[in-house]
Amino acid sequence: MKVIVIGATGTIGKAVVEQLGKRHEIVTVGSNSGQYQADISDIGQVRALFEKIGKADAVVVTAGALAFAPLADFTPEQMRVGLDSKLMGQVNVALVAQHALNDGGSITLTSGSVSELTIRNGASASLVNSALDGFVRGAAIELQRGIRINVVSPTLLTESLEAYGEYFIGFETVPASRVALAYSRSVDGAQTGQAYKVW
Amino acid sequence: MKVIVIGATGTIGKAVVEQLGKRHEIVTVGSNSGQYQADISDIGQVRALFEKIGKADAVVVTAGALAFAPLADFTPEQMRVGLDSKLMGQVNVALVAQHALNDGGSITLTSGSVSELTIRNGASASLVNSALDGFVRGAAIELQRGIRINVVSPTLLTESLEAYGEYFIGFETVPASRVALAYSRSVDGAQTGQAYKVW
Ligand SMILES: NC(=O)c1ccc[n+]([C@@H]2O[C@H](COP(=O)([O-])OP(=O)(O)OC[C@H]3O[C@@H](n4cnc5c(N)ncnc54)[C@H](OP(=O)(O)O)[C@@H]3O)[C@@H](O)[C@H]2O)c1
Ligand SMILES: NC(=O)c1ccc[n+]([C@@H]2O[C@H](COP(=O)([O-])OP(=O)(O)OC[C@H]3O[C@@H](n4cnc5c(N)ncnc54)[C@H](OP(=O)(O)O)[C@@H]3O)[C@@H](O)[C@H]2O)c1
Repeated sequence: MKVIVIGATGTIGKAVVEQLGKRHEIVTVGSNSGQYQADISDIGQVRALFEKIGKADAVVVTAGALAFAPLADFTPEQMRVGLDSKLMGQVNVALVAQHALNDGGSITLTSGSVSELTIRNGASASLVNSALDGFVRGAAIELQRGIRINVVSPTLLTESLEAYGEYFIGFETVPASRVALAYSRSVDGAQTGQAYKVW
Repeated sequence: MKVIVIGATGTIGKAVVEQLGKRHEIVTVGSNSGQYQADISDIGQVRALFEKIGKADAVVVTAGALAFAPLADFTPEQMRVGLDSKLMGQVNVALVAQHALNDGGSITLTSGSVSELTIRNGASASLVNSALDGFVRGAAIELQRGIRINVVSPTLLTESLEAYGEYFIGFETVPASRVALAYSRSVDGAQTGQAYKVW
């Protein structure tokens, strides 16, 4: 299969490329890195990306930014970061990919455990991750031509402990290689509408 | 208690006002109706609303628009309707109310069963309703001064069967009076971070 990985140079993306690359042809994408460049928060750039790449069988998104802040100080503008980037960025990819992928193709998005394992400063993360899980449930039943959609919901990666560990005291972490398994399961499996929790 | 009901003239809001009004002083709000006017999609109007009303013990929101469309045709602009109105409108109210309400106050929002009971044309509804349930989980653990937050997740109301019934063939409906019980349970109860499913 030809698999597009958007966010391929990131902590999760690198592990996904390594694992899926053993069985599939990988096309790497980032906003500033990879073989192709596109900012997923702009649906015009997503459309242009799929036109440039041509036919593919699967797309995986391991990209998207979120703001973390205390609820008492959270502004609508900070909420907007997660809505425009992590949420609508991935929704944009799904909306375009449903038409661009080959029959029987698959779309795999990324949410995160803060949907349920709530943390201080995480109100936007809980909102956005839950929204992604909900979107995938809703979209799965409407996709045509055998196209499937799933979302991987990782908890804190062992590789990200240094960057985000202060928010996740007492949480067990998961190695990127284990998180990547869930993406393989989505791409190579037959399920749709699932949120694969890696926690 | 003094309870602000935003969306008081709507199908759900009317039933909430009737039921909460038996025990509490109610302040009614709409964008064009009620004792006070504010468009919740604009946080500036929400701030001005709470300043005008002064101290209150609880706020209930039964307002917020969503777009319904086939996934194959859904545009980011249509997604934006639910994000700006039903989602960020209610988040705006929570962000302001956390500071404006009296100690021990409560915030009650409205999502909907399409979060899990997915339907055709409902991808944005699944996304937005799941986002609200997630936001409430995340926000609950950070609220100060004993302030609580819950969300009511109703399925199709019997009173809305004529308007939306074509999307919900085979669904059991619930009368507005039964949905209103869940708002009473949130306002008069002691729980926080809950999604009260009325289905
Ligand atoms: N790391 C964790 O512990 C963890 C846990 C749960 C969930 N997650 C979620 O998983 C996703 C990836 O996390 P990560 O830690 O792997 O991130 P990361 O290391 O910062 O990598 C992000 C990747 O996405 C690309 N990217 C960023 N913004 C983009 C945009 N607007 N359009 C296209 N590509 C973009 C980056 O490349 P460019 O710089 O070239 O754009 C990079 O390849 C995030 O949404 C995060 O919330 C992460
Ligand atoms: N009805 C159902 O079967 C059902 C089921 C599940 C979930 N829900 C959800 O429950 C909520 C209320 O539904 P409903 O059927 O009761 O709606 P509705 O009958 O259309 O009433 C909406 C109420 O909200 C007010 N409103 C609308 N937009 C507003 C805004 N931007 N700012 C402030 N107030 C605003 C309206 O007053 P003005 O016209 O004066 O603004 C009205 O009082 C919606 O979010 C809906 O998705 C409904």
